[in-house]
Amino acid sequence: MANPEKKETHELRKTIHCIKVGIAMTLVSLYYYTNPWSNINSQGAAMWAVMTVVVVFEFTVGGCLYKGLNRAVATLIAGCLALGIHWIASLSGDRFEPVILGLSVFVLASIATFYRFVTFIKVWFDYGVTIFILTFSLIAVSGYKQDTLFTLAQQRLYNIGIGIFICLLVCVLICPVWAGEDLHLLIIWNMEKLANSLEGCIAEYFKEGGVLLAVDEDQEAIIQRSEGYKHILSSKPSEDSLAILARWEPGHGCYGFRHPWNQYLKIGAAMRLCAYCLESLAGCIDSQTQVPESMKRHLSEACIKLSTNSSRILKELAKCIKFMKKSKYIDLLIRDQNNAVKELDRALRSLPPMEAMENFGCVSLLEGRVLITAASLLIEISARIIGVVEAVNLLAEQACFKPAKDQVEDEGMISSKTSFVVTLGPQAIRTIEEA
Amino acid sequence: MANPEKKETHELRKTIHCIKVGIAMTLVSLYYYTNPWSNINSQGAAMWAVMTVVVVFEFTVGGCLYKGLNRAVATLIAGCLALGIHWIASLSGDRFEPVILGLSVFVLASIATFYRFVTFIKVWFDYGVTIFILTFSLIAVSGYKQDTLFTLAQQRLYNIGIGIFICLLVCVLICPVWAGEDLHLLIIWNMEKLANSLEGCIAEYFKEGGVLLAVDEDQEAIIQRSEGYKHILSSKPSEDSLAILARWEPGHGCYGFRHPWNQYLKIGAAMRLCAYCLESLAGCIDSQTQVPESMKRHLSEACIKLSTNSSRILKELAKCIKFMKKSKYIDLLIRDQNNAVKELDRALRSLPPMEAMENFGCVSLLEGRVLITAASLLIEISARIIGVVEAVNLLAEQACFKPAKDQVEDEGMISSKTSFVVTLGPQAIRTIEEA
Repeated sequence: MANPEKKETHELRKTIHCIKVGIAMTLVSLYYYTNPWSNINSQGAAMWAVMTVVVVFEFTVGGCLYKGLNRAVATLIAGCLALGIHWIASLSGDRFEPVILGLSVFVLASIATFYRFVTFIKVWFDYGVTIFILTFSLIAVSGYKQDTLFTLAQQRLYNIGIGIFICLLVCVLICPVWAGEDLHLLIIWNMEKLANSLEGCIAEYFKEGGVLLAVDEDQEAIIQRSEGYKHILSSKPSEDSLAILARWEPGHGCYGFRHPWNQYLKIGAAMRLCAYCLESLAGCIDSQTQVPESMKRHLSEACIKLSTNSSRILKELAKCIKFMKKSKYIDLLIRDQNNAVKELDRALRSLPPMEAMENFGCVSLLEGRVLITAASLLIEISARIIGVVEAVNLLAEQACFKPAKDQVEDEGMISSKTSFVVTLGPQAIRTIEEA
Repeated sequence: MANPEKKETHELRKTIHCIKVGIAMTLVSLYYYTNPWSNINSQGAAMWAVMTVVVVFEFTVGGCLYKGLNRAVATLIAGCLALGIHWIASLSGDRFEPVILGLSVFVLASIATFYRFVTFIKVWFDYGVTIFILTFSLIAVSGYKQDTLFTLAQQRLYNIGIGIFICLLVCVLICPVWAGEDLHLLIIWNMEKLANSLEGCIAEYFKEGGVLLAVDEDQEAIIQRSEGYKHILSSKPSEDSLAILARWEPGHGCYGFRHPWNQYLKIGAAMRLCAYCLESLAGCIDSQTQVPESMKRHLSEACIKLSTNSSRILKELAKCIKFMKKSKYIDLLIRDQNNAVKELDRALRSLPPMEAMENFGCVSLLEGRVLITAASLLIEISARIIGVVEAVNLLAEQACFKPAKDQVEDEGMISSKTSFVVTLGPQAIRTIEEA
């Protein structure tokens, strides 16, 4: 999932995971095969170690821990409960024993299933509840005597513990995949995609005959980049499941044990709000309505400037999250964005100046409709990006990001090229283009 | 999931599901408890029936069939393969036996895990692959002799079969929940929500001081209704999983075995495109920018008419899907919508007539920006609704919807009230309002 741009890395991770499963299975099989208690009964118990590895071994450490801990705790609780009910049933005589056992299975299975619908339980303990029903039923209705049962339950628990231990060992020691880190990278990657899409969409729209600024890439790359926002529209399920698993993980790398994974979801949601708008913008732009070139040229510079500024904010935020550092420039960039909004505002205001309307030919509002809509949506996106800024600021607070240092020398945020564009007036650029 | 508006129905379904799980568990436990082969070895085999019920019993019939069939087939294949490898290993002497068995587990577990990443396998056979690894490892490395193993494998398969049989019996006979039907209802429900939201959003926006047409409900209901589109934005995961499970279900009710469930996903995707636009529209409208009342009044009627027409198309489509009947009116409604688009178009064109600009006060484009954007997005939504119409038409073809009959007398599509609005000219309405 993480950084899908590096596809080879992802393929490599998959391959490593396959090998890890093979290793875990071989380890537990060897344990099973060379099990010192080699009578049939214990073989049956050792089987639980194999079963545990198969169902508990997950792609991420968080997944492994979630299933492992759920399985261990649920088995323990269900085992104790079942032993208790078994004991009560055995006291009540041969006639009532099956009735009590049957009833207890019915009631507990129904209640446990009901709890699987409760959101909190569903998110944290769904697997545990399944295992609870399984273990309880198996022990409660087994025909064994009380003392045999106790030994059996003990052995089973011990073997499940061995299985979980092998899983965690292999999962954590051999190239561990952390759900938390994946979520972190996914959010950064999505943010960069959004920034590129926003810039690409606007650049693409204004390129034909318009003033094409700060874009010297080839067309195909722009088009491909400007589709990136689509990933964000559909990445909510991945974000949610990664955040759930990340909560099970201990501190690792630069993420503490109580790292605010929930805040990543909020950043994701804020980005999705931008992506919805960008999708509409892309739709309007694609709608093939002809816009008078003169009008397009009039708004081009202001639109491109705003989109570049907005995109720069997103890129700066992505960098903040990446290095877990507060940004020195973000206030500056927001001020720039505000100015760009005002400039676009002015450009819109000056669009149909009563007296100068002839300059644009006989342009009715309808002809410029798409353009005005695009500009409006761009302004709306800028406002929504402030929502992303706020969400990232909250993350920076909660996760105690390092304060901003002097990054100017090593990163050079505002490149000479873009500052050239910013300082150049529209007239100058038009002159350059016409030259 | 289905028809969440009827919340009590959903709660009832949950409760019934809990009771069904209890019944299935009790049935299988009784089987386990009264198992005629009451020696310890067979008890171990009967345990597989209980385990099967716990993990295979799902909320929907499709889920049950998916897991049940996967489990049965995977167990069979893995069992045969494991017996074969066990036999080869036993021929190769005591020294090589553990090596061959260990290697086979390593290789097969790795390869099987690799296939879990392949999309097709992941969608259709993910559970089967897990069971394959489990069964293969358990049998391959068990220390049993060849003939004991064969009997054991046979017993286990038989017990798993019993478990699946009990699951399906309870799942299908007691108030079955069909994933296909849920998907069908979810799409209809979402479509109605979208229609209501679209109408509600526009009615809400134009209500203050504007010409409020065809809306006589109280405010709160409108606001609540206009938020409905948000469900659509996030319902992709539910739609996807229901469609996957629906494919496992046999024909039921009015859905044939090869009912085109995939087409429902396409309808869902087309609706989501509308919802993205509606989200942006709602965002723009909420942005608190003051729009001159005069300008608002000028566009109000055309906007409301278009939104009402678009919403009526969606409602008609929802009805088509609901009754699996082709619509008589849809072409008429699309023509109406086209006319409404043209009317809005005209209203926009006539908005800043050079000479009449004073009538609107000193209105620059900026003041009307939000209004023009809303109108543009409304036109874009209308275009996207045609995408929904096309998707539904394709479904009607693929699922052989009944041809349209004379529904006029019993349904009265175009109510007298709305036709009053349609026939009334903008001038007449303004006069009414001012009176």
